[in-house]
Amino acid sequence: MSDAPQNEAATESYSYLGPRGTFTEAALAQVPDARGKIWRSVNNVGEALDDVVAGRSVAAMIAIENSIEGGVNATQDALAKIPNLRIVGEYLVKVQFVLVAKPGTTLADVKVVNAHPVAYTQCHHWLDANLPSHGHIPATSNVAAAASLFDNDLADAAVAPPGIVDHYDLDVLAENIGDNDNAVTRFVLVSKTTAIPPRTGADKTSLIVELPDDRAGALLELLEQFSTRGVNMSLLESRPIGDALGRYRFVIDADGHILDERVADSLLGVRRFSPKVIFLGSYPRADKAPIEYIPRYDDDVFIEARDWLRGVISGEPDAS
Amino acid sequence: MSDAPQNEAATESYSYLGPRGTFTEAALAQVPDARGKIWRSVNNVGEALDDVVAGRSVAAMIAIENSIEGGVNATQDALAKIPNLRIVGEYLVKVQFVLVAKPGTTLADVKVVNAHPVAYTQCHHWLDANLPSHGHIPATSNVAAAASLFDNDLADAAVAPPGIVDHYDLDVLAENIGDNDNAVTRFVLVSKTTAIPPRTGADKTSLIVELPDDRAGALLELLEQFSTRGVNMSLLESRPIGDALGRYRFVIDADGHILDERVADSLLGVRRFSPKVIFLGSYPRADKAPIEYIPRYDDDVFIEARDWLRGVISGEPDAS
Amino acid sequence: MSDAPQNEAATESYSYLGPRGTFTEAALAQVPDARGKIWRSVNNVGEALDDVVAGRSVAAMIAIENSIEGGVNATQDALAKIPNLRIVGEYLVKVQFVLVAKPGTTLADVKVVNAHPVAYTQCHHWLDANLPSHGHIPATSNVAAAASLFDNDLADAAVAPPGIVDHYDLDVLAENIGDNDNAVTRFVLVSKTTAIPPRTGADKTSLIVELPDDRAGALLELLEQFSTRGVNMSLLESRPIGDALGRYRFVIDADGHILDERVADSLLGVRRFSPKVIFLGSYPRADKAPIEYIPRYDDDVFIEARDWLRGVISGEPDAS
Amino acid sequence: MSDAPQNEAATESYSYLGPRGTFTEAALAQVPDARGKIWRSVNNVGEALDDVVAGRSVAAMIAIENSIEGGVNATQDALAKIPNLRIVGEYLVKVQFVLVAKPGTTLADVKVVNAHPVAYTQCHHWLDANLPSHGHIPATSNVAAAASLFDNDLADAAVAPPGIVDHYDLDVLAENIGDNDNAVTRFVLVSKTTAIPPRTGADKTSLIVELPDDRAGALLELLEQFSTRGVNMSLLESRPIGDALGRYRFVIDADGHILDERVADSLLGVRRFSPKVIFLGSYPRADKAPIEYIPRYDDDVFIEARDWLRGVISGEPDAS
Repeated sequence: MSDAPQNEAATESYSYLGPRGTFTEAALAQVPDARGKIWRSVNNVGEALDDVVAGRSVAAMIAIENSIEGGVNATQDALAKIPNLRIVGEYLVKVQFVLVAKPGTTLADVKVVNAHPVAYTQCHHWLDANLPSHGHIPATSNVAAAASLFDNDLADAAVAPPGIVDHYDLDVLAENIGDNDNAVTRFVLVSKTTAIPPRTGADKTSLIVELPDDRAGALLELLEQFSTRGVNMSLLESRPIGDALGRYRFVIDADGHILDERVADSLLGVRRFSPKVIFLGSYPRADKAPIEYIPRYDDDVFIEARDWLRGVISGEPDAS
Repeated sequence: MSDAPQNEAATESYSYLGPRGTFTEAALAQVPDARGKIWRSVNNVGEALDDVVAGRSVAAMIAIENSIEGGVNATQDALAKIPNLRIVGEYLVKVQFVLVAKPGTTLADVKVVNAHPVAYTQCHHWLDANLPSHGHIPATSNVAAAASLFDNDLADAAVAPPGIVDHYDLDVLAENIGDNDNAVTRFVLVSKTTAIPPRTGADKTSLIVELPDDRAGALLELLEQFSTRGVNMSLLESRPIGDALGRYRFVIDADGHILDERVADSLLGVRRFSPKVIFLGSYPRADKAPIEYIPRYDDDVFIEARDWLRGVISGEPDAS
Repeated sequence: MSDAPQNEAATESYSYLGPRGTFTEAALAQVPDARGKIWRSVNNVGEALDDVVAGRSVAAMIAIENSIEGGVNATQDALAKIPNLRIVGEYLVKVQFVLVAKPGTTLADVKVVNAHPVAYTQCHHWLDANLPSHGHIPATSNVAAAASLFDNDLADAAVAPPGIVDHYDLDVLAENIGDNDNAVTRFVLVSKTTAIPPRTGADKTSLIVELPDDRAGALLELLEQFSTRGVNMSLLESRPIGDALGRYRFVIDADGHILDERVADSLLGVRRFSPKVIFLGSYPRADKAPIEYIPRYDDDVFIEARDWLRGVISGEPDAS
Repeated sequence: MSDAPQNEAATESYSYLGPRGTFTEAALAQVPDARGKIWRSVNNVGEALDDVVAGRSVAAMIAIENSIEGGVNATQDALAKIPNLRIVGEYLVKVQFVLVAKPGTTLADVKVVNAHPVAYTQCHHWLDANLPSHGHIPATSNVAAAASLFDNDLADAAVAPPGIVDHYDLDVLAENIGDNDNAVTRFVLVSKTTAIPPRTGADKTSLIVELPDDRAGALLELLEQFSTRGVNMSLLESRPIGDALGRYRFVIDADGHILDERVADSLLGVRRFSPKVIFLGSYPRADKAPIEYIPRYDDDVFIEARDWLRGVISGEPDAS
C-alpha cells in the first residue's frame, strides 16, 4: 500500500515518565524525530524500558542524572539489568519549580504542600522561609503532586514544574522556588540495540562496569584503562550490585565515540578486566561541545602503531 | 549537688529516625551506652544531626548505606555539609519486611498497599506475585506506612519492619516479603567532633573528599593516595557537589584507623591533593573483622623510615 | 648443479668477537645451526654487526649483558643505531677466569698481569690476595691478554678464559680466580630482519625505546604499557641517547613473544607513546623457562574482547 | 700555636683521578675551597674514595656520568658499596679531545694511536676519516695515553684532553677531534657523611636504591614514590647488583633538596619500599638552574596537611 510508511510513522511511539507536564516530557519535546509521533506516558523507568524491549515504543526518554541529587538510581539499575538497550541521545532540562494551587487560593491559605520528595528537598529553603509552618504530603511524581489537588483536600498547594499550567487549571502562587538556579536534569533517549550512529566529534560513550572482586585496587585499574589512552570521564557513579555490601558496579560516561581509536582501545581494556561490561551507547553530547584530547591519542597514532606492528611481525625492513 | 551526674545521665539523649519500630531504632538498640537513656525520635537525618550540633543529643543514629539501594544520599550530603561531626560507631541491621494490616484483614482483602518507596521497591517481586493488581500509596517512612492504616482508609495493608508489631496493634499477613535475603542496612552513630577513640585493630576510617576540578585523572590520583600506602577501601561512593553537572565529592571508607601510620600518611596525601577533605572519624567496624594488610605497610616500617630520614639529615654515619 | 645447496651451506658464516678462545666463541659453540659453518673472528661488536648488514655473515654472536658489569654498552648502542637487525637466539656462558703464563713460569715469577679491564676488575680480590704487589697492563680482550705474552715481555701472566689453553701453549697458574662464582654473560645471536620465529612458550622480546622528552613521568608511562597488560620485564637498562645529558633510551627484555596478544598490545602502547621504538626480536630464552602470566592476560581474553567490541559496534544483541 | 689553623689548612688535601691534565683535574679546578690545598692524584675511583674514608683527603672528585657513555659504572658501583660517603657538589666539564705527539711528528707519521678505550670510541669518526689505517693501543687513562709516548715507541700519537700540553712537551696535531660537540662529563665531589648543607633552591638529591625482588612492577612502584609527590628525576641508571642476572639497583638524581618537604616525603616512601637505600647527598646543581615544581607540592601544603592531621586526631573543631 502506498500509504504504509505514513501509517508506520503514525504508529511509532515514544515512552516517557508522565503524565503530561513532567520534566521528562520537556526532554522529549527536544527530540526532532519524536515530533508528530505518539507519546506514551508511563509510570516509571521500568515501564518505559519495557515498552522499548517489547517493541511498543521505538524509544524511551528517561532521567539519568540530576545535578543536585546525583545519578538516578532506578535508571542506572534498570540499564544494568535489562539487556539489549542502547542510549541514542542526551538531553538537558533546567529544573525549575513553581508553587501551584487551585484558582482562588492565596499563599496565606497554604497549610499543607503536596510534593514529590526530591522536589520537596530542592525547594526546602523557599518553603521554610515563606511557609514556615507548612506540612508535607509526599507524591509519586511532580505532576501527581499537582493533580492531587483535584483528588482530595489533604493539601492546599503543590510543588510542580512550570509546564504544569498548560495541562491543569491551576494558579501559580510563586515561581522559581527551587534552591539552586543551576539545577539541571540529564535525560537519555533509549532504544533497542542498534548499529552505532556515526561520529559527530562531540560524542559521549556510556557503559556500566562491574568490578572484579578478587583483588584490591580494582577501581584504580578500571580508571587506568581510560587514562592510559587519554580518555576523560564526565561521569563515574558507583552503584551497589545488590547481592552484598561492598560489591559495586560503576556507571561511566567517557568522552568520545566507540569508533574513536582511543575509546575503542579503552573498551577492549575494560572488557578484558571486568567480569561484566554493559555497553550503553555512543551518542552526541547534549551540549555539543567537541571532545578535546591530546594529539598523541589521535586515531592516526593508533593506526600507524598497528601498521608498524604488522610490519615488524612480517619481517619488513625498518622504515628509514 | 551530689546527684548531678545522675541527672546529667538522665538527660543524655540519642536521636534516631523514628517513630518507634524503624530499622534505625533497631540499630540504636545495639548501642550499649544508649541503654536507659532518652531516645529522641526525629523525622529525618537533618533533624537528627541538628540535635547533635545543638547539643540536644549526645549522638544520632543514621542510616548511611543500604546493600540494595546504595549510599543514603541524604545522609552523605548532610555529613558533607554540617561541620564538626564525628562517626563513633557502625551498626548493621538486617532488612526484613512484613505485610501488616489491621486485625481481621486477610490477604484477599488487600487492594491498596501503603509503603515507603524504597521498601516498596524491595518487596516488588513478592507484591507482584501475591497481590498482582494492588495499588500503591507512598509513605514518608516504613513506620508511617503502618501508622497510616489507623489514620485513613486509603490503604488496606502496609509494608513495615518486623518490629512494628511491638508498637501497633497490627496483624502480620506475610513475613519475609523482601526480594533479597541478604539485604542489610549500615547505620552510623554520629557525635560532635571529639578526640579519636583508641585503635581496636578492626577499625574503619570515613572521609568525604572533593576532587580538584583543574585536572583529568583526579580520581585516579585520589585512589593512589590509599593504594600506594597499602590501604584498602570498603566504600567509594560518588556524590554530586551540586553546583554543576560533573563536579563530584567522594564518600570513602578506608580500612584501618587514623592512628595507623599507613592511614595517617594516606590522609596527609589526600589533604594535600584535595580542595576539601572532611574527616568523619575512625571507629570500630560493625563486623569486628581485623584489618589485614601487607607487612611492609606496618607501623614499624613507617617509624623506621622516619628515624632513617632524621639520621640522614643530621649527618649520622650509615648504619652498619 | 646438484651440489649447490652444499656449497651454499659451506659459505654460510657466523661472526663473533674473537680470536678463538673467547667467551663469545663459547657462546657460538652452543648454536646447532653454526656447526660446520665458517666462524669469522672479528675485533668488536661493530664489525660483527657490519658483517651481518653487509651479508658477509648470516648472523653474529655478541655479548649483551654481564651479571657483574651490567649491560654491554657497545652492544646496546650498536643495536640502537644499526637498523634492520633482529635477535634470533640467546645464550648464556658462565664467566670463569684462569691465570695463565708461558710454560715454566711460576706464580712467584709474576710481577705484571695483562688483563682486559673488565676481567681485571672481576678478579680483583684474588689478584690482591695472591699477587699483592702486581702491576696491570690493559688488553683489548681476554684473548689478547693471553696472546700478548708471546708478543712482548711487558707482562708475566694473563687473565684469560679457561678455553684459552686449547689455542695457546700456556700453563694455568691458577683456576677460578674470579670473585663471583655466579658470574654469567648473556649473548645474543643477531641476524638481518626476518619474519618472527614461532612461539615456544618460553620466549623473550627485546626492544629499545626512546623516552619522549616533553613530559615528566615518561618512564612511568613506558613501564605501565607493560604492567597494565600483565607483561613482566627481565631487563631494563638505561642508556644515554648521547646528544645531551638527561636524554635516555631504554633497553628492554619483556617476557613473552610478539605473537602473544598481551605482548603485541604492549608493543602497540609503546609505539604510540615513544618517538622511537626499535624492535629487536622475539626469540627463545636461553633458560627455556616457560613464561608465567596471570590467566586474565591470556590470548583468549584479548580475542574475546575484540569479538565483543566488533559485536557492539555492529549492533548485535547482547550475549545472553 | 697561633699558626695551627693555617697548618691544618695546608694539610687538607683533595683526591682526584690523575695525573695532572685529566678532565677530573679540570673539575677539581672549579672548586673554590680546593684552591691552595694539596691535590692528591690517584689511579682510580676506588683509591679516591678510600682516601676520603681513611681521612687522607677531605674530599674526592670523581666522574659519575658522561653524556655519551652514560653512567660511570665504577663510580656508581663504588658509591653503592662504600658506606658513609656524601656527595657535596656537582661539576661539569666539556669533553674535548686533541691528538698529540712528540715534537716533530706530523699527522702523516701516525700509524698507531694510544688512547683510553672510551676516548677512542668518542673520536672514532675523526680517526677513521683522517687516519683510516691506524692501529690502536689502549691506555688506562687519557693522560696515560699521552705519557706513554715517552715510555715506549709502540704508538706515534695519543688522544688526550686539551690541558695535556700544560704538563707534557707535546705537539697538538689536531684539535676538537671528538665526534660530539656537546659531550660533557659530570663530576661529583665526595666527602665523608656530614650534615646536609642548606638549600639553595637549585639542588639535586642523589640516591641508590635496590629493588625488592619479591614482586613485579617494583620499578614502577619506585618511580611512583617520586611522581606522586611532584618530584622530577634527572637521572635514572640501572646497575646490576651483581649476584645474579636480573637483580638491579638504580642510581637516581631527583630534583630538589632533602629539606624540601616533597623530597623528604619521597625519600620516606622509597625507604619503606626498598630493601636498601643509600642516600648520597643533597647539593647544589652544577647548572644552578632553580628547581621548578607544581605549587601543590610546595612545603606549605605539606606543613598545612600535617597541622590538619594533628587537629583531627586531637579532636579540634573543624576550621570554619
